[in-house]
Amino acid sequence: MPQYTAPTTDLQFLLHDWLGLEKHYQGLNLAELDKELVNEVLAQGAKFAEQVIAPLNREGDEQSCTLKDGKVTTPEGFAEAYQEYIANGWNAMLGSAEFDGQELPYSIAVPVHEMLNSANVSWRLICMLTESAVLAVTKHADEALQQTYLSKLISGEWTGTMCLTEPQAGTDLSLLSTKAEPNDDGSYAITGSKIFISGGDQDWTDNIAHLVLARLPDAPAGVKGISLFLVPKFLVDENGQPGEANTLSVGSLEKKMGLKACPTAVMNFDAAKGWLVGAPHTGLACMFTMMNDARFQVGLQGLGIAEASFQGALNYARERLQSRAPQGVQAPDAKADSILHQPDVRKMLLTQKALTEGCRALSILYASQMDIEHFGSDEEKANASNVIAFLTPIAKGFMTDMGSEVSNLGIQVYGGHGYIREWGMEQLVRDARITQLYEGTNGIQALDLISRKLARDNGSKLAATHGLFASMIEAVENAALKSQAQTLLKEWHDTSVAVAKQDATQLAGAAYDYMHYSAYCLLGVLWITMADKAQQSDNPVLREGKSNTCAFFLKRLLPRKDVFKANLLADADDLLTPSTEQFDYQ
Amino acid sequence: MPQYTAPTTDLQFLLHDWLGLEKHYQGLNLAELDKELVNEVLAQGAKFAEQVIAPLNREGDEQSCTLKDGKVTTPEGFAEAYQEYIANGWNAMLGSAEFDGQELPYSIAVPVHEMLNSANVSWRLICMLTESAVLAVTKHADEALQQTYLSKLISGEWTGTMCLTEPQAGTDLSLLSTKAEPNDDGSYAITGSKIFISGGDQDWTDNIAHLVLARLPDAPAGVKGISLFLVPKFLVDENGQPGEANTLSVGSLEKKMGLKACPTAVMNFDAAKGWLVGAPHTGLACMFTMMNDARFQVGLQGLGIAEASFQGALNYARERLQSRAPQGVQAPDAKADSILHQPDVRKMLLTQKALTEGCRALSILYASQMDIEHFGSDEEKANASNVIAFLTPIAKGFMTDMGSEVSNLGIQVYGGHGYIREWGMEQLVRDARITQLYEGTNGIQALDLISRKLARDNGSKLAATHGLFASMIEAVENAALKSQAQTLLKEWHDTSVAVAKQDATQLAGAAYDYMHYSAYCLLGVLWITMADKAQQSDNPVLREGKSNTCAFFLKRLLPRKDVFKANLLADADDLLTPSTEQFDYQ
Repeated sequence: MPQYTAPTTDLQFLLHDWLGLEKHYQGLNLAELDKELVNEVLAQGAKFAEQVIAPLNREGDEQSCTLKDGKVTTPEGFAEAYQEYIANGWNAMLGSAEFDGQELPYSIAVPVHEMLNSANVSWRLICMLTESAVLAVTKHADEALQQTYLSKLISGEWTGTMCLTEPQAGTDLSLLSTKAEPNDDGSYAITGSKIFISGGDQDWTDNIAHLVLARLPDAPAGVKGISLFLVPKFLVDENGQPGEANTLSVGSLEKKMGLKACPTAVMNFDAAKGWLVGAPHTGLACMFTMMNDARFQVGLQGLGIAEASFQGALNYARERLQSRAPQGVQAPDAKADSILHQPDVRKMLLTQKALTEGCRALSILYASQMDIEHFGSDEEKANASNVIAFLTPIAKGFMTDMGSEVSNLGIQVYGGHGYIREWGMEQLVRDARITQLYEGTNGIQALDLISRKLARDNGSKLAATHGLFASMIEAVENAALKSQAQTLLKEWHDTSVAVAKQDATQLAGAAYDYMHYSAYCLLGVLWITMADKAQQSDNPVLREGKSNTCAFFLKRLLPRKDVFKANLLADADDLLTPSTEQFDYQ
Repeated sequence: MPQYTAPTTDLQFLLHDWLGLEKHYQGLNLAELDKELVNEVLAQGAKFAEQVIAPLNREGDEQSCTLKDGKVTTPEGFAEAYQEYIANGWNAMLGSAEFDGQELPYSIAVPVHEMLNSANVSWRLICMLTESAVLAVTKHADEALQQTYLSKLISGEWTGTMCLTEPQAGTDLSLLSTKAEPNDDGSYAITGSKIFISGGDQDWTDNIAHLVLARLPDAPAGVKGISLFLVPKFLVDENGQPGEANTLSVGSLEKKMGLKACPTAVMNFDAAKGWLVGAPHTGLACMFTMMNDARFQVGLQGLGIAEASFQGALNYARERLQSRAPQGVQAPDAKADSILHQPDVRKMLLTQKALTEGCRALSILYASQMDIEHFGSDEEKANASNVIAFLTPIAKGFMTDMGSEVSNLGIQVYGGHGYIREWGMEQLVRDARITQLYEGTNGIQALDLISRKLARDNGSKLAATHGLFASMIEAVENAALKSQAQTLLKEWHDTSVAVAKQDATQLAGAAYDYMHYSAYCLLGVLWITMADKAQQSDNPVLREGKSNTCAFFLKRLLPRKDVFKANLLADADDLLTPSTEQFDYQ
């Protein structure tokens, strides 16, 4: 596995110089979180990711998870690393202070989460879903459920899962058939089978809280008849400890392309005891509290994998000596030059770098809006919520597509060695591939963006997002860059407004292109603001590196937007015209 | 695994209607190969691929290959399928009649090879390399070696390998260090270690002919000091049978991302007996006979995998019921519509279809040029050789990149199920990934295209290729399509001429973009000629399907060329400017 080193320099630049964390926290009455403290959290997070989690990644993929006698075993060292993680309080970073959480802002937690994803995305996933479960329980569960579960979930003493998908109901949850029948004691008997349950069982903790979508007996058909239930692996006794086993079981573990060190379970609920979370028939809305968080977190997985692959490829390119560089001999005393000097290899590495650092900026910007949504004034919150709603499908959809592109480039830089498992580069591709599929495929993200976020609510989400990016451009000092960013943002805004007026079929046909078009435009703006801000840095490598990478992004990658734009503005008739028979000629 | 059905209708259309096989064969004095015979070979090839080879694919990936006590075991059924393959003469399709080959034209063999790649690319690879070895021995070995090995290799009684790569010498073969020292009997003692040897050992045949690059004692440094040797696994006795074991062994098998059912060996040669193939120090040129063939054949692997993935995705999309189509309810009696009606899914499927069928046309065109090179007049041969030289890196580089794109789309259509191994879709992605790496990475293909094929020899290879495509456009009947094709071809030609004048560094920076730019332009021309020719078909599904898919390609995929064009015309300074330190900030 390539050695992982957390990108601390870039993160510190983004947080302190680019985002202006000091001022940001002052505005949110979080001034006690000074630069020193933030850097200390980053340093400790880096150390944990580099030294404890990353070393487990390669072997975890080879060992994968096993199911024997109904019990799941995760790879060696995973449970111990988790114990260290929760002992050090990492799981509690975002949880409510009322239940012993640290209630830190997202802008501190997100960089650490990126590092953990770079180090070992399989290991990270269960922690991530537990955080999402905390959100749903915090926001929707009643007092009694919160008292029973919340502090344990926040500390990480117990983990959480999301149980949505059934074999016949994936994208279309209206088709789900798991039943919830009232018991006499206020609980419900949950019966049904769920698939693709990440961390459905594990050997890390002595209880698991499953958050399960099911239908009450009187439920209306469709998505309006879905309710959310908390279903523990072990029923909690009067002392708050895991007692009797609930009537649920792992049917099997999936054999997957990657993410092998995370158990993906078929979960069977056989009149298992569960408790309602939120009002009856509002389960989908409650679950979306989890899902929106998880979607951004999945985007962060794409980012983390991209960074790991970039580091691996860069190190390899520096060391691998093959041929001479066309621009002239670079290492006259060696038999060949390092491939880092090959223009084509440089193009691959710069593509990796420009996409990864651009997405990192997006993740930090997103985190800052999450901070505002949590700690800001009501008016600020409303605006931040609009931005978050708009950016969530882009963060999930684009950052995961990016993770696959970048990790595939990582293989390519390695040549044939990239295909060999021991080098670790192909694992990154296999692990990245799931991120484009789960928590809603990227096609579903694109539909969410264009039909729910762009076209509804009188464009308020577009307006809030546009306003945020426009304000960032205002601060750009370099006049030429500023003008370029303004032109780019205006083009994006004009195109967005035009697209929003189209009918549902046209929107569906344009969705994927609109998501990518938006991502490239917005990343272009982010790159300009980064390059501009970096000119004030006293680190010459960062200063020039950001400037050169920005130029590369604008010249080589931003032109991709025009293909997406041409496609999204095109009439969708060509998509609908072919008869179902014309797809093949059998 | 998705059920595989050979695309016989499309292949028959391409061969008979589009290419005009009857006239093509008449011009090559092959008129005895009539339509009936060709269709019979396609039908038998389809039956073998569908019924014998395809069923082994999924389980072969799970079992993979093992090395025990120095012997390699391939998955169950593989050796038996191979025996059936050679018993039915499939291995001998292209071999010289002098050594009991059938000496069929490539235009008959290539469609069968595509089918075998769709069915099971791991199984196919050893056969493919044996065919390449036959070429090298036929063209370069002396009479004695040919008498000993050629009929066995052509029949498939023995297989062949290509032993080029060493740990320190991959792209840059000048660095290879395997030695060949003369023995008293005219043979050579080969000593060294080779890696990534596909089929380095197997349990299919009782001998293997390794074609090994090594240096003679008096060899000059660099690529001009490399010679080619035939090194058998077992020395051949006076009766032509395998006798004493040669001093070579399998050091280990690689654990790979995919292609698991094909053994990829580290081969150790310990003064193993070998015989010179071709003149001393001309090994690289001799090996290029194999490599050029293998490069096209690897492109065909990309095509085969793409077709398999497209079929899987299409069948799934037809059957999977989720949500309603935005353009209106399609199946009022069902709970949901099939996802084939979702515009975004249609866009993915049409992308798969347009790329796959476009590349199939390219493969048939390429095969027709191989026919001419083999059976044509001297003047025709020279022209065909120029076309083949130009198209080989495009066929390898683009068709394999395409295979990865299409098979990744196949996963995406399946959603989460695409990530689960039992469905077979993710295996196609893993198997496809190697095709972008071996036989020269696609970056190397791009460099070969732009610096050896485009920029040298006064543009004669470009001219020959341009001439061929221009002549195809001449035959287009639809005036609007014809004009569009002419404009496109002219743009490509003008751009190519402009690019060819640049210096080596600029060419290296532009290489990958030029390869893709060329592929999209040329595929655009092929699509127009296909759509035009299909209008004469009496199969309405094919007629309209080709027309609609052509429109889709021109509208949705061809615009990609403009991004590649912008990039390849751009100054390469931005690639060279960043210092090696600026790639990260550690």
